[in-house]
Amino acid sequence: MNKPGKHRKAPEAAIRRLSVYLRILVDLHRQGVQEVSSEELAQKVGFSADQIRKDISYFGEFGVAGVGYDVAKLKDHLAQILGIDRPWNVALVGVGNLGSALLAYPGFKTSGFHIVAAFDNDLLKIGKTWENVKIEDVARIPEVVKEKQIKIGIIAVPAKSAQMVADYLINSGVKTLLNFAPVVISVPEQVKLRNVDLTVELEVLSHFLSVHGD
Amino acid sequence: MNKPGKHRKAPEAAIRRLSVYLRILVDLHRQGVQEVSSEELAQKVGFSADQIRKDISYFGEFGVAGVGYDVAKLKDHLAQILGIDRPWNVALVGVGNLGSALLAYPGFKTSGFHIVAAFDNDLLKIGKTWENVKIEDVARIPEVVKEKQIKIGIIAVPAKSAQMVADYLINSGVKTLLNFAPVVISVPEQVKLRNVDLTVELEVLSHFLSVHGD
Repeated sequence: MNKPGKHRKAPEAAIRRLSVYLRILVDLHRQGVQEVSSEELAQKVGFSADQIRKDISYFGEFGVAGVGYDVAKLKDHLAQILGIDRPWNVALVGVGNLGSALLAYPGFKTSGFHIVAAFDNDLLKIGKTWENVKIEDVARIPEVVKEKQIKIGIIAVPAKSAQMVADYLINSGVKTLLNFAPVVISVPEQVKLRNVDLTVELEVLSHFLSVHGD
Repeated sequence: MNKPGKHRKAPEAAIRRLSVYLRILVDLHRQGVQEVSSEELAQKVGFSADQIRKDISYFGEFGVAGVGYDVAKLKDHLAQILGIDRPWNVALVGVGNLGSALLAYPGFKTSGFHIVAAFDNDLLKIGKTWENVKIEDVARIPEVVKEKQIKIGIIAVPAKSAQMVADYLINSGVKTLLNFAPVVISVPEQVKLRNVDLTVELEVLSHFLSVHGD
């Protein structure tokens, strides 16, 4: 049971919102703003001030009543909670249309996520370089993952290969997976899996259109 | 307040899970399976049977105690709830790396989402065809959105242009937006916005690695 005031495990949705708060704080810091209230943050992110205070309080007391948050401190605090106060090496498997786009995605690098290895099973792609990353044979996953101390894997292969790739990455020492293949894959309990199914996102919209009339 | 047994508004998270259940049901139907229990579904999707029953019950009574769900009927029921018992015309704005990948993403078409228009402001891209879709000048958004009765817009432009593109789409009659730009955009209350921030997904993973040790 969650008792108010007690330190407790934050739900994943809260972690996702912290990411959004952090974006705003980085912007405010860049603009030279030194303090921000939860109400001001609320206006910018579209969640309530109560929600923001609750999300931040999962990780201890922060902010001064009547004054608000110190922008620089809260920014560093959130970066630490999110584990991006240090860089991470990331492996990408599958360099098709989506994989190529992910390799070029500028947001990853600025948040400290470096795709340092890319794998494919297409002989026409292996050996080529894309966005300064050499595309290697999937057979080299175990070796490269260990050599580059990779803990995060991105799966951008067709649905039918996704489970095999996940198993391969996990057996090589990867602890967390971001899966873009539109299929349910299973992982051991100690591995963290996030699925990004782009069709799910559109179905949330078509549900809205159906309910509210188009 | 949500009273059990009363028809009530489903949270967005439930809608997202219905999408996942539907994927499994489509597979089962293809394999010729006629009935499935919430326990069997639970094993496949990784949510609890209670959760599944609750999510489905937001939209009325379904399933027979002790027997489970009729696969074909539940599949059609969920497709109707999600609004994908009919096709939707979708507009894409921004045909860079990510936009090109979205145009080629096979999952959209199979779920009835047809990107029938793509826009960019790059003169080198305008007039070219990608995945059978002609890339047009963003200035043509109002005209094309009306002509093709587009209600869903996908934003895949850089952060600095995202709000402008959103406003332009909404003023042209688009009712729902899927935003891939890593920026908070504001929309009127009657417009539904979903944000896909790929960095947020990775930050959920780095948080996990920080908490559980890497």
